[in-house]
Amino acid sequence: MEIEYLHTMVRVRDLQESIVFYKLLGLEETRRMDSEAGRFTLLFMSPPGQENAHIELTYNWDGDTELPSDSRHFGHIAYQVKDIYGVCKHLMDNGVTINRPPRDGYMAFIRSPDNISIELLQMNEPLQPSEPWISMENIGHW
Amino acid sequence: MEIEYLHTMVRVRDLQESIVFYKLLGLEETRRMDSEAGRFTLLFMSPPGQENAHIELTYNWDGDTELPSDSRHFGHIAYQVKDIYGVCKHLMDNGVTINRPPRDGYMAFIRSPDNISIELLQMNEPLQPSEPWISMENIGHW
Repeated sequence: MEIEYLHTMVRVRDLQESIVFYKLLGLEETRRMDSEAGRFTLLFMSPPGQENAHIELTYNWDGDTELPSDSRHFGHIAYQVKDIYGVCKHLMDNGVTINRPPRDGYMAFIRSPDNISIELLQMNEPLQPSEPWISMENIGHW
Repeated sequence: MEIEYLHTMVRVRDLQESIVFYKLLGLEETRRMDSEAGRFTLLFMSPPGQENAHIELTYNWDGDTELPSDSRHFGHIAYQVKDIYGVCKHLMDNGVTINRPPRDGYMAFIRSPDNISIELLQMNEPLQPSEPWISMENIGHW
C-alpha cells in the first residue's frame, strides 16, 4: 500500500474532559506521549480493533488561546455504531447534548467539548423510529 | 464491534481542485452523491484498500461563504506513505507547497486547497536524510 490513513488530530482545551467524552463514545486509549520539553501531550484513541483509525488529541499544557469556539471548513468525524439509541441515551445520561437527535433511527450529531462535530450513524439498517427520539428538537448546529 | 470509524469530513470551495489534490496524494474516489434538492455534492475518497477510512468532501454548489481561511481547533488528517520523498516530489512537481519538508526523512506537512493541514509520515523506518530536503526551509505554518 502506497498510502494509508492513520488519524485525525484535534486540539483540546481540557484533556481529561476529552478523554471522558471519547470513552463515552466507546473509544479506547491506545497510546500516550507526554513531552516535558515541548510541554504537550498527545493521546491516541480508537474504536476497539481499529488501530489504524485513531483520533489524536493534542493537549498543550500552557493552554491554547488561539482555539476558536467553532469553525466551518472542518466538517466532522464520523463513526457508525451498533445501537444509535443506546449510544445517544448513554451520552445524554452523562450530560452530552444531542444536537441532532436520531429521529430517523439512523443519524445523530453531537459536539466534543471543543465543539468538534461528530456524526453517528446506525450500522446496517436504520432502527424503527420511536420515542423519545421522534419528538426531540434539534439543538444548535453541527 | 460497537463503534467503527468511517470518515473525516471537510468542506471544499472547489470540488475539482480538491479531487486533483487528493488524487495526487494517492487517494481514490470511492463514492459520489449529487443532491439536486440540497444543491450539494458529497464525494468520498480513500487510500486503495482502506474503504473504512474515507475523507468526505462536501461541496455546496452555491458556495460556502462562511469558510474561514484557517482554523486551529481542528488539527490535521494523517497518512503514512511508502516513500515520503517520492510523494513530496510528486506533489511539488504538481504545484503543491511542502509547508514542512521531510528534512528528517520521516515527517512532512502540506495543506489542501482549503487549508486543511495534512501530515505525511514515512512508513516503517525514516529514510536517510538527503538533499534537496535537508536544506529546504519551512513555509508558513500547518
